[in-house]
Amino acid sequence: MELFFLGTGSGVPSKERNVSSLVLRMLEERGTTWVFDCGEATQHQILNTTIRPRRIETIFITHLHGDHLYGLPGLLSSRSFQGGETPVTVYGPKGLKEYVDVSLKISGTRLRYPLHIEEITEGMLFEDEKFTVHAIKLKHGLESYGYIIKEKDKLGELLPHKLKELGVSPGPIYQQIKENETTTLTDGRVVTRKEVLGPPKKGRKIAILGDTRYIPELIEQLHGIDILVHEATFASDEETMAYDYFHSTVKQAATLAKEAEVGELILNHLSSRYHGPAIKQLEQEARAIFKNTTIASDFYQHKVKRVD
Amino acid sequence: MELFFLGTGSGVPSKERNVSSLVLRMLEERGTTWVFDCGEATQHQILNTTIRPRRIETIFITHLHGDHLYGLPGLLSSRSFQGGETPVTVYGPKGLKEYVDVSLKISGTRLRYPLHIEEITEGMLFEDEKFTVHAIKLKHGLESYGYIIKEKDKLGELLPHKLKELGVSPGPIYQQIKENETTTLTDGRVVTRKEVLGPPKKGRKIAILGDTRYIPELIEQLHGIDILVHEATFASDEETMAYDYFHSTVKQAATLAKEAEVGELILNHLSSRYHGPAIKQLEQEARAIFKNTTIASDFYQHKVKRVD
Ligand SMILES: [Zn+2]
Ligand SMILES: [Zn+2]
Repeated sequence: MELFFLGTGSGVPSKERNVSSLVLRMLEERGTTWVFDCGEATQHQILNTTIRPRRIETIFITHLHGDHLYGLPGLLSSRSFQGGETPVTVYGPKGLKEYVDVSLKISGTRLRYPLHIEEITEGMLFEDEKFTVHAIKLKHGLESYGYIIKEKDKLGELLPHKLKELGVSPGPIYQQIKENETTTLTDGRVVTRKEVLGPPKKGRKIAILGDTRYIPELIEQLHGIDILVHEATFASDEETMAYDYFHSTVKQAATLAKEAEVGELILNHLSSRYHGPAIKQLEQEARAIFKNTTIASDFYQHKVKRVD
Repeated sequence: MELFFLGTGSGVPSKERNVSSLVLRMLEERGTTWVFDCGEATQHQILNTTIRPRRIETIFITHLHGDHLYGLPGLLSSRSFQGGETPVTVYGPKGLKEYVDVSLKISGTRLRYPLHIEEITEGMLFEDEKFTVHAIKLKHGLESYGYIIKEKDKLGELLPHKLKELGVSPGPIYQQIKENETTTLTDGRVVTRKEVLGPPKKGRKIAILGDTRYIPELIEQLHGIDILVHEATFASDEETMAYDYFHSTVKQAATLAKEAEVGELILNHLSSRYHGPAIKQLEQEARAIFKNTTIASDFYQHKVKRVD
């Protein structure tokens, strides 16, 4: 599982940073990729990567500002043109469906795959055997959400020495013991699974937030997240500006990361006023508060490590 | 006046060619630029040029396929963000207004300049002292138009020796003679303007067509055009494919240029199947029929010369 940043700028594209998009590649975990936000030219950025549009399974839009959205009709169309056939689900705020429907309709676009558009509110959006995704509400000029992706904990490995102690010989019975809370052996004895398993593999937790003002109330919801992706449109001393434009400063993002005791913080959505040395400066500001901070640039890749 | 090609590919962006857009720069003539089609990432292409979005006065959309249109909301928004304040008019087929309105509305975009959207049919769209623009109907999967831009002929220069012959001395009377068909001198004599003027400066004529099948009936309407910009999605031997997909071959475009006796032919909208040597081959195919042919690439600039 890895994060692949495609656009880390804010508002308008610049030569250095495209408008917002990032991909969560889950090739090992589910053979697919998930896309978070889809600013204009996201498909162009993808052309310069090994990301395959046909692998895209789900697209999450944090809010409907153009710099997070205007690349969506093009990406959906090109995925069809390039032979994508598996269904795609797009989650996002109310208005998303009208925008996509009108864009595809007036351009005479007929997708070769099923497209599901889900207009969301807060709460759980998705659950399967391996993952859940929740949406949390942020504070921005438009309705804006953060997405919390949680991998479910996996059972630990069967411990052979424990099974040996119980006198259970290797065979199909091992699988049965692992798959059930309790298993009755042929001799009538009952084996409780948790007694013969090693420690569970903790699932990874990622939070990818849309544009937002600083919200201290998020501390609780973000507690224990492994990787927090947070916007940092402005430098630390621009709090008034950040408030007025419904954005956050580097300091605010780092404070949230610290208070919520997340594992790592990755900052994106930087104003185009910051270049080169100014970016280093922002990184220092953040790290003074929360050491494990990275400022993402376009095409930055970040492994989502398993924390044991 | 010059043509500046921003996107010369077809259907989907490739690393070599973006989707459709081209600019007619008229800085000398009117201090503005006109844009023809606006595929996704047109604003990104512009970032790599000296074109200034705030100079854009008019945008002509040939048809509503996504590869000619999906960059429009982003370009309009960024122009506002970057301080554009003068009005913009967008011409295009029916459906354009709904698309732009919905895109701007759901993204909460308020432009800082007046935007006029004109849904067109065939005929004259625009006329001022210097230019006219006509739309002509093409044959494509969706309603598609070509735009014919005609610069009006200008009066020739006053010929001093002719005026001398008539005994008219230099002074404000010269300007009067130039501005009126006939001028009565103080001695009662009448000077007819055309007798004292050199040859008129012929206005330039450019035709920029959208996607289309080969239409021999266009020969008449394109007769005498200085520069014809025509799509050439396919090689000359792909006539069936071109017909089926409502596109043209290189040979068809060159034949039209020849029959219409245009001055120059520029081909764009090339399928991404053609690269490198294949492009040279297409150029040879075209030049065998119509010598004065160029195949445009992204960022190709072409002066619109005055033909005397
Ligand atoms: Zn925003
Ligand atoms: Zn088309």
